[in-house]
Amino acid sequence: MPMIASELKQRLVDIAGGRGVLDRPEDLLLYEYDGGVDKGRPDLVVFPRTTAEVAAILAAAKESRVPVVGRGAGTGLSGGAIPRAGGLMVAFARMNRMLDIDLPSERAVVQPGVVNLDITLAVQPQKYFFAPDPSSQKACTIGGNVAENAGGPHTLAYGVTTNHVLGLECVTPDGTVFNTGGKEPDHPGYDLTGLLTGSEGTMALVTKVIVRLMRQPEMVKTILAIYDSNEDAGDTVAEITARGITPVAVEMLDGVMLRMVEEATHAGYPMDAAAVLLIELEGLKEAVEEQVEQVREACLASRAREFRVARSTGERDLLWKGRKNAFGAVGRVSPFYYVQDGVVPRMQIARTLHYINGVSKRYGLTISNIFHAGDGNMHPIILFDARKPGELKQAQRAGEDILEYCISVGGSITGEHGVGMEKMELMSKQFSGETLDMMRRLKALFDPEGRLNPGKLLPTGKGCIEIRQPAITGAGTVY
Amino acid sequence: MPMIASELKQRLVDIAGGRGVLDRPEDLLLYEYDGGVDKGRPDLVVFPRTTAEVAAILAAAKESRVPVVGRGAGTGLSGGAIPRAGGLMVAFARMNRMLDIDLPSERAVVQPGVVNLDITLAVQPQKYFFAPDPSSQKACTIGGNVAENAGGPHTLAYGVTTNHVLGLECVTPDGTVFNTGGKEPDHPGYDLTGLLTGSEGTMALVTKVIVRLMRQPEMVKTILAIYDSNEDAGDTVAEITARGITPVAVEMLDGVMLRMVEEATHAGYPMDAAAVLLIELEGLKEAVEEQVEQVREACLASRAREFRVARSTGERDLLWKGRKNAFGAVGRVSPFYYVQDGVVPRMQIARTLHYINGVSKRYGLTISNIFHAGDGNMHPIILFDARKPGELKQAQRAGEDILEYCISVGGSITGEHGVGMEKMELMSKQFSGETLDMMRRLKALFDPEGRLNPGKLLPTGKGCIEIRQPAITGAGTVY
Repeated sequence: MPMIASELKQRLVDIAGGRGVLDRPEDLLLYEYDGGVDKGRPDLVVFPRTTAEVAAILAAAKESRVPVVGRGAGTGLSGGAIPRAGGLMVAFARMNRMLDIDLPSERAVVQPGVVNLDITLAVQPQKYFFAPDPSSQKACTIGGNVAENAGGPHTLAYGVTTNHVLGLECVTPDGTVFNTGGKEPDHPGYDLTGLLTGSEGTMALVTKVIVRLMRQPEMVKTILAIYDSNEDAGDTVAEITARGITPVAVEMLDGVMLRMVEEATHAGYPMDAAAVLLIELEGLKEAVEEQVEQVREACLASRAREFRVARSTGERDLLWKGRKNAFGAVGRVSPFYYVQDGVVPRMQIARTLHYINGVSKRYGLTISNIFHAGDGNMHPIILFDARKPGELKQAQRAGEDILEYCISVGGSITGEHGVGMEKMELMSKQFSGETLDMMRRLKALFDPEGRLNPGKLLPTGKGCIEIRQPAITGAGTVY
Repeated sequence: MPMIASELKQRLVDIAGGRGVLDRPEDLLLYEYDGGVDKGRPDLVVFPRTTAEVAAILAAAKESRVPVVGRGAGTGLSGGAIPRAGGLMVAFARMNRMLDIDLPSERAVVQPGVVNLDITLAVQPQKYFFAPDPSSQKACTIGGNVAENAGGPHTLAYGVTTNHVLGLECVTPDGTVFNTGGKEPDHPGYDLTGLLTGSEGTMALVTKVIVRLMRQPEMVKTILAIYDSNEDAGDTVAEITARGITPVAVEMLDGVMLRMVEEATHAGYPMDAAAVLLIELEGLKEAVEEQVEQVREACLASRAREFRVARSTGERDLLWKGRKNAFGAVGRVSPFYYVQDGVVPRMQIARTLHYINGVSKRYGLTISNIFHAGDGNMHPIILFDARKPGELKQAQRAGEDILEYCISVGGSITGEHGVGMEKMELMSKQFSGETLDMMRRLKALFDPEGRLNPGKLLPTGKGCIEIRQPAITGAGTVY
């Protein structure tokens, strides 16, 4: 028999304590959005403190038959933490402890609410770091990183989150706790850790994460290369690859973007250039010094007009500050913007920039580009004004055009932001019906009632409005 | 209605041609074993040439309700390709073409029957290589590497097969063809590529593999460090780690093993030492030269009695020849041996060697050690005489004792050989009931009838004999 909302609320209070449950409209308002453009308000938010509480909460939600959405810091860019069907949100802000830091094994065991950067800060004195570094790393949490398989500028050398997660503790929508993997890599049996990482909160809620720690490199050099043409910057990426050099990061900012960033951060980016590359090299001193010379040659061969190497940690931090605060810089110029995330083979970067330029003209919208050039992971940022009727829709269409282009050249619809609610219908263009069927069956295996993060990742063939279903609508409501 | 064996054979002949089907006992005999100690004879072997043929074969097998086992080169060490329930074997020897070599994108697309080393040989002139390098790399095939998530000496720096596979084409047991991933890494949606890699042929048959190619390093240095004690060699691994150096390989051979290897290969290993480490460093010239010095310090600090750096490619190849032909060397000394595969945290290596020594004494069996020390992946080789009653069983028990010890110190029951039929019952010691249930449900999702590689990977709680089920027993038999 379905439970009424007041009963569910009482049960949640019994589990997580009175301060662990929110249901006042003014509180819920804060949980209806993430870093993207979509919205959806939960009916209740609960803040568990332990795995046992998460299991009890999910068991209660099952009895009440309400949808459940996990949430970390809400910095995601594809709507992964948006409760589009309403219902119960499980927020991990109180599960934010580092449980074990094991430097000899180069592992840490952390709760999902730990902030990404805090892991690195905890082990920095011993010269270790946690490699995945999304731009939101000062705020975003590991649970969300695992759900979205987050990347970052250093993905090029170190890979995305899945390459740094060795084991998980999870709870299925019926409240069953299970473990995957362990401290040693490549545990036997089916790779459940890999399957759950990047599953965007649609299979299970993560309650514990075993991550890999890495040793700091002996030397880091950060380079700014300045160009009078977008294509030349794109060519440089191919040129560096051809020389067999793998920088740890190759970030590109186009002219529109670097002017916005420079005005906001005064990082020292040129105001008149068409594009810059931010290139980072790491390793042993001797190797890095040689690579800097090789990268200099590659940049000059591709007609860079200037090549600067940061001379101090301060200069380096400033360059990265410009890059990592880019979205804030955009916000100063345009109140509304839409960040896309697509991947193309890196040989196709110059051609893709040309295509994006065409899209910009076609829709009459400014599109600025900042992206992980080294792995072909493009982030066109489409500026629009949501107050003008139809402009949000135009921006979304422009984004879709760009993603379809990415697929057409052999790329993919997301590099690191996830599919979420934003791109789920595009999955049909990325994968065959057979492959999508297999994904649907995997989803049903973990979540047979479809209550966990409904309306995400898998295409329905329907529009957004049809997905919104009745959920908890107030005390006393039967659902 | 079940089909009779003669009908199934005729259908297979229609699909794969007369030369593509074997059913004579003297032919089948060649397909009853792999590189391990278990046996099981198929009733029919079929050699498809295309994905469409694989799909048609699996559809026919479904109608006939026979078990199906895929097979590459049969070099596996955990019984993965052994048809323990009889039935139909699908051997990939005729699907051995490289379909696409895309150097600008650093990818190759290959059929499952391509020999591992042949990929490297094909791209060597352009200075690329395929990283996973199991000892059997001259014979083993990519399909088997994917099934077992194979490793090799260079796993330490490059990871195992799953880190080098970006996409698959597969056929489910009902004959459905589907694709996973693509040339670009980290495709959206659930990570089917990762789930299938290492699934030991229990979910689907792989018909195409997209692999990552890597650039050859500028310089390679191979080092032989010689010790008078096992513990000192073990300590060196910890010492190298503590200095923040990651060699691409750290292989250890104990005294028993290095004498067998030296007698067989004359690689220049010392006959009187207690252990040697084979250490390889790769990268830019300057970095490698500095690292050689740091490794020298680490070895001498751990009481190495000698430290040699190979002076030429010839010397380097000879050292590796010794390592890679170790199993052949064992075969010269003992007609029967049992290779184990367990993982321990690398800080536990010295203690684990001590434990193995105790097991050797307890069972009265010689146990020789050769292993990937850098990642704690132990390979005790247990020598026995199968002609002496009970000695095989004793060897297997000794192996189990060692694996339980690995679990007890936080390690795992297999690093790279797979679970197969050898270790499936040990899975219950590695994982909780909830985790195993989830694996069982994943298996059932792909293979609801349990016909694909039955009696592997997942524990049954039963012994081996009970798993053997009636299959194709001859023309005219109904099953």
